[in-house]
Amino acid sequence: MKKYNLTEEFILDRFLRKLNLNRIEAFDFNNDGGFFKIPKNAKMVVTNDTILESIDFFVNDPPESIANKIATCNLSDLSAMGAKPYCYTLSLCIPKNTSYQWLSKFTKKLFSIQKKFKFFLIGGDLSKSKKIVISSNFFGFIFNNNIPKRNNAKIGDDIWVTGNIGDSSVGLKIKQKKIKLNKKDEKYFLNKYLYPEHFSLGYLINNIITSSIDISDGLYGDLEKLLNYEIGASIKSKIIPLSSHTKKLIKKKIIKLDYLLKSGDDYQLIFTTFPKNDLFIKRLSKKNNVKITKIGKIIDKKGIYLDNIKKKIINKSFQHFS
Amino acid sequence: MKKYNLTEEFILDRFLRKLNLNRIEAFDFNNDGGFFKIPKNAKMVVTNDTILESIDFFVNDPPESIANKIATCNLSDLSAMGAKPYCYTLSLCIPKNTSYQWLSKFTKKLFSIQKKFKFFLIGGDLSKSKKIVISSNFFGFIFNNNIPKRNNAKIGDDIWVTGNIGDSSVGLKIKQKKIKLNKKDEKYFLNKYLYPEHFSLGYLINNIITSSIDISDGLYGDLEKLLNYEIGASIKSKIIPLSSHTKKLIKKKIIKLDYLLKSGDDYQLIFTTFPKNDLFIKRLSKKNNVKITKIGKIIDKKGIYLDNIKKKIINKSFQHFS
Repeated sequence: MKKYNLTEEFILDRFLRKLNLNRIEAFDFNNDGGFFKIPKNAKMVVTNDTILESIDFFVNDPPESIANKIATCNLSDLSAMGAKPYCYTLSLCIPKNTSYQWLSKFTKKLFSIQKKFKFFLIGGDLSKSKKIVISSNFFGFIFNNNIPKRNNAKIGDDIWVTGNIGDSSVGLKIKQKKIKLNKKDEKYFLNKYLYPEHFSLGYLINNIITSSIDISDGLYGDLEKLLNYEIGASIKSKIIPLSSHTKKLIKKKIIKLDYLLKSGDDYQLIFTTFPKNDLFIKRLSKKNNVKITKIGKIIDKKGIYLDNIKKKIINKSFQHFS
Repeated sequence: MKKYNLTEEFILDRFLRKLNLNRIEAFDFNNDGGFFKIPKNAKMVVTNDTILESIDFFVNDPPESIANKIATCNLSDLSAMGAKPYCYTLSLCIPKNTSYQWLSKFTKKLFSIQKKFKFFLIGGDLSKSKKIVISSNFFGFIFNNNIPKRNNAKIGDDIWVTGNIGDSSVGLKIKQKKIKLNKKDEKYFLNKYLYPEHFSLGYLINNIITSSIDISDGLYGDLEKLLNYEIGASIKSKIIPLSSHTKKLIKKKIIKLDYLLKSGDDYQLIFTTFPKNDLFIKRLSKKNNVKITKIGKIIDKKGIYLDNIKKKIINKSFQHFS
């Protein structure tokens, strides 16, 4: 096998430069930074997410999965803010012995995600570290001046959730060897854990929603943030969108719905809107072939209630720092 | 001593929120990201620098110094790009046992730098890690459409450098116990190492310079990047701006000029301009009480030449990844 001397210049030249798609904003990474062109009447949204080895992913996860993770967690933030992706910066801290293959797979996956959602790499930083740490700022445009807030839901609003809930968290349990399934099911859930897909259409609903948040700490955890301890949510367990695979596990009592709602990086959105927008959402859902499900209502009683308005859900969601 | 439970919410509330200066762009960190307001006719410059414990700073460096470092390396990039600071994002990865005092000192220093250069924290991410890793994107405005490039110097241009060269690298040698000086001198150099000050007036010269770069890998190393292996530089050793403290060390043969030019995070700028701009620069220098020194000329012979046009400087500058 050919040996490469992975210097900064080599990594830039061989792997990173192609991610700037020759956009003038990036100066081909030959400057101290990049610059933005701002379309008239647009606002720019900026997000920041960082992922760390042994915390947000396992060191032996496929490089494509790690690339998918740093992009997806930021892209779902952009979507929750109602923005369309434009570009991103990449701070890549990797060990000295990182292989050519790792870098090739990692950057190829980034390239394919960039192609799918149409954005480019504007700049970044490359450092040597003991463990992998990847931090990104993502930038997106809002063209209609509507930036959804997290804490703007009103009593009587409907609560919607996109996609399916919990597939990724089942994958995590398999990864941690806490449950064992047949090969086919394991493959399904591991794939959902390694390659979660975000809901990318936030920019199409930003004018009708009263609040939104992406699900990165479980449905309950993120719904709590949206409620901000000021209002409440009544949700119905039977309506919560689950994949047929997950439903099977619940039926077989291998997994509890409660676990699925308390954990997991689904990168789907929770959002609230006036009941009059039902038809608009259903049409959008059908036209784009994405699942969007009304799971409950905002109420004036503080807390989250599942099926029973008398029993408040006690949730201990993932703490990034504890 | 009072014990604190340093949860994510606590750190946000007690230390980080005050850095957003209540700017609406930050949503008081209660959203999935922030947004930018773009002044008419302005372009926005974005930089990205990451610093790591044991690589870019020592674990026992004062938290104020670490705060100074992440701000200064990004601010000097903004300045090299001719931009005026506007805001920044902060990805803070810190160990679980980080103390209240550390966070207090770190954020107080950021606050004071923000106040001095008038910018605010728009968002970020907080993670638990074994070692400290801090990544920032800084954003600045260009109001006159002139973004200096790195590789645009022309033969015959004058080469200028701001501030003094090498103070910080002497401080590093003291820190590493490679040299020993009297207490007063050690204090001077250590301070220059721990708290380097960047040249902040790049936005005042962006319309007259043909190229610029900030010095983060030594004068030679960054000058080489500016020359891009296509042109050369003839510089005069006697004109290179040094502090009186450094001059004394050279005279006593404790340190060599060559070392000072090959290493060090000075965060000053090297820039090139037409000779006709002499007067403009001298006036700017005087008015703002900053040192700006003409150290040489761009020539058509490739490489860097110090005093002797026949002897090319062999430089092995700092490699971020080797």
